[in-house]
Amino acid sequence: MSQRPIFFITDYGLEDEYVGAVKAVILSINPEAKIIDITHNVPSFDIYTTAFIIEKVLKFLPDSSVVLAVVDPGVGGKRKPICGKSRISFYFDGSQVVKTFYFVGPDNGIFSPLFRGDFEVFVLDYVKIRDKAKKLGVFLPLSSTFHGRDIFGPASAFISSGEDLIEIVGHRVIYPRTLSFPELKFKYGDSFRQIEGSVIHIDKFGNIITDIPREVFSGYRIKSLYLRGKKIPGKLVSSYEEAKVKQPLFIFGSYNTLEISLREGNAQKKFKAKRFDRVKVIFEKINE
Amino acid sequence: MSQRPIFFITDYGLEDEYVGAVKAVILSINPEAKIIDITHNVPSFDIYTTAFIIEKVLKFLPDSSVVLAVVDPGVGGKRKPICGKSRISFYFDGSQVVKTFYFVGPDNGIFSPLFRGDFEVFVLDYVKIRDKAKKLGVFLPLSSTFHGRDIFGPASAFISSGEDLIEIVGHRVIYPRTLSFPELKFKYGDSFRQIEGSVIHIDKFGNIITDIPREVFSGYRIKSLYLRGKKIPGKLVSSYEEAKVKQPLFIFGSYNTLEISLREGNAQKKFKAKRFDRVKVIFEKINE
Amino acid sequence: MSQRPIFFITDYGLEDEYVGAVKAVILSINPEAKIIDITHNVPSFDIYTTAFIIEKVLKFLPDSSVVLAVVDPGVGGKRKPICGKSRISFYFDGSQVVKTFYFVGPDNGIFSPLFRGDFEVFVLDYVKIRDKAKKLGVFLPLSSTFHGRDIFGPASAFISSGEDLIEIVGHRVIYPRTLSFPELKFKYGDSFRQIEGSVIHIDKFGNIITDIPREVFSGYRIKSLYLRGKKIPGKLVSSYEEAKVKQPLFIFGSYNTLEISLREGNAQKKFKAKRFDRVKVIFEKINE
Repeated sequence: MSQRPIFFITDYGLEDEYVGAVKAVILSINPEAKIIDITHNVPSFDIYTTAFIIEKVLKFLPDSSVVLAVVDPGVGGKRKPICGKSRISFYFDGSQVVKTFYFVGPDNGIFSPLFRGDFEVFVLDYVKIRDKAKKLGVFLPLSSTFHGRDIFGPASAFISSGEDLIEIVGHRVIYPRTLSFPELKFKYGDSFRQIEGSVIHIDKFGNIITDIPREVFSGYRIKSLYLRGKKIPGKLVSSYEEAKVKQPLFIFGSYNTLEISLREGNAQKKFKAKRFDRVKVIFEKINE
Repeated sequence: MSQRPIFFITDYGLEDEYVGAVKAVILSINPEAKIIDITHNVPSFDIYTTAFIIEKVLKFLPDSSVVLAVVDPGVGGKRKPICGKSRISFYFDGSQVVKTFYFVGPDNGIFSPLFRGDFEVFVLDYVKIRDKAKKLGVFLPLSSTFHGRDIFGPASAFISSGEDLIEIVGHRVIYPRTLSFPELKFKYGDSFRQIEGSVIHIDKFGNIITDIPREVFSGYRIKSLYLRGKKIPGKLVSSYEEAKVKQPLFIFGSYNTLEISLREGNAQKKFKAKRFDRVKVIFEKINE
Repeated sequence: MSQRPIFFITDYGLEDEYVGAVKAVILSINPEAKIIDITHNVPSFDIYTTAFIIEKVLKFLPDSSVVLAVVDPGVGGKRKPICGKSRISFYFDGSQVVKTFYFVGPDNGIFSPLFRGDFEVFVLDYVKIRDKAKKLGVFLPLSSTFHGRDIFGPASAFISSGEDLIEIVGHRVIYPRTLSFPELKFKYGDSFRQIEGSVIHIDKFGNIITDIPREVFSGYRIKSLYLRGKKIPGKLVSSYEEAKVKQPLFIFGSYNTLEISLREGNAQKKFKAKRFDRVKVIFEKINE
């Protein structure tokens, strides 16, 4: 059976050996495993950012990918170690693509983006995993603090080599934990439209990424935009170079939602947004 | 046909999922692709550093490598998406090696080091790339801000699997953009020699790397060295340990040019150089 | 012969092309090489942290792994370039596993964790390596500052493809350099026990990791704990969530030694420990 690639995301950072130790265990179990880093610099314990990043990247993962995600403030405690399978339809310009994903990690909401379509979730059975590994000459400890190495990595290794989930799991989880995100609020009038959304991420370039989708702009233009109640100057552009260097601009970013940016600059340094800050856009109708 | 390895350099950073998303798309198109990171921590939008790093590493890449470079302040604007092929001769101690490289990215000068020897450059044709990907069940969006994922990554995936460039390109680019770097200035006399060069990079260790090559030292020794007109103490050594710990020294670095360093310390913290700061060396003849 | 995976650790950082350049040379020599990063963010020149990280990860590496470690303040100087082989027994819950490791890097003590069990160490012979590489069309320079690229990487490439060490080495090293670490100090009484250990690492989460092993706690509980003579509040827990958020706690970490942590917080920011700070634990007997 062909290999399922493992896409790996954690808050382990790249200073210590944690990421390397997990990969060492995976390759001990499945020497052919293909492991691709999404990022290991999620802010420590930040399950919202983890879910957000998985949501953004999911659509682009190859069919049959395994998402190994370990951001785990409750490690060693009551939260369940889980794995599962999800079959999701995506739409690109009218075409439908169906992909199957596997996922492994703690049950704390980070997998919320996978809990749509047809999905099933199981509790991982450490004893089954340990015993299967032992047959390969691989010995797994069980620490209180490093389940990426002891449970999740090994489970992903078995799944990546084509194992059926049933080999490593116990009972089914009916209600896995999900995270709730703020909702969009609309106000409509005849020639009037207003939308309130939120900052959901600030990226490395200082782009302030919101959850306001491109669709709501159809037939309207931005009259004004407020971040935490404060008016932000700038205009909607279709490429950065329509703005002057270091000037604020609004643009639909890589996930087709509105972003507040500075051309060749850092909007975050200027406007100091935080996740879930409210962003209000007041539109005016385009008179064609 | 065997795989061409992809060497990948960006300013995406490792905090977000951008690097992982590009790799996901590459592996969706070519599951056997071998992707090696050069660095993703180029300072945001810094095309000079990108060109400099490509120049330094190029000579050591395997024959037939693909250089995927995305530092792209003009993304979504007028700059052209390009790819190409370059056949370059390198000299090592009198031996000549000829290597062929492929490259993919924006036409903003970052590929200057590849525009020597025999080379050809083409504009990428997004529609061809999208349609070829679609036949493999891979759907590519076209955003205004993330051409690494939408165009360059996919193009590199096709090239890495051995595709001919003609499959994914439009017309030929006669004059791709190149960056100009400061030139060396020499003054000669009978027993006198002076050279003025520049700082071209400051590395992670704080080494201040110049463009002054080892060759010009033949038969001479350093009398004095000035950085931005300020005399820097120190002597030329052939290994760090000839200097005292934390003392300044001059050494020929990994690319055979002069570097200003502190032994087991950070020269940049002490001397605060910037790229393109002038470095003047006054030599005196070695009386043999 | 099957590939031996290369586990790669340096202080090169991820800002420059150094890591990529070494990988380029390895893949030029052995296109099938599998290279896994342990970390490249060891603090510059810090051989103790390097040894500590190798010690922690070693037990989990696949049998026949090659450890390529380049933290090399003495590069270009008198320290010897070495490689070797070590056969080590590990114990997991009563089971014994024997693994063979190869290693390549400078002889400055970073390989101390490999100098147990059956091991042999050799001086690398640059001329042999260069000539073998040349036969493959790969030309290796010899700089004063970048032996990762010029010697160690290439040597690891040959070893990874199954070459015998004898092909690339000169004479045997009888006494490779080892690092000494502080020792544990015990005081015992009838119902009294005290242990003094040290901080050996501070990780990305700010966990303060000590060398005090779980075994010494058997039958006793912590009465008080001192860091640099200062009493640290907190209790021993078996999972983080037994403590309140941001409260100090003591826990056996991923390597079964005592760690000082804050739940979902950064203990290092609060207590400002340094490596080798003394940690004293006073125990009291558990009356069963």
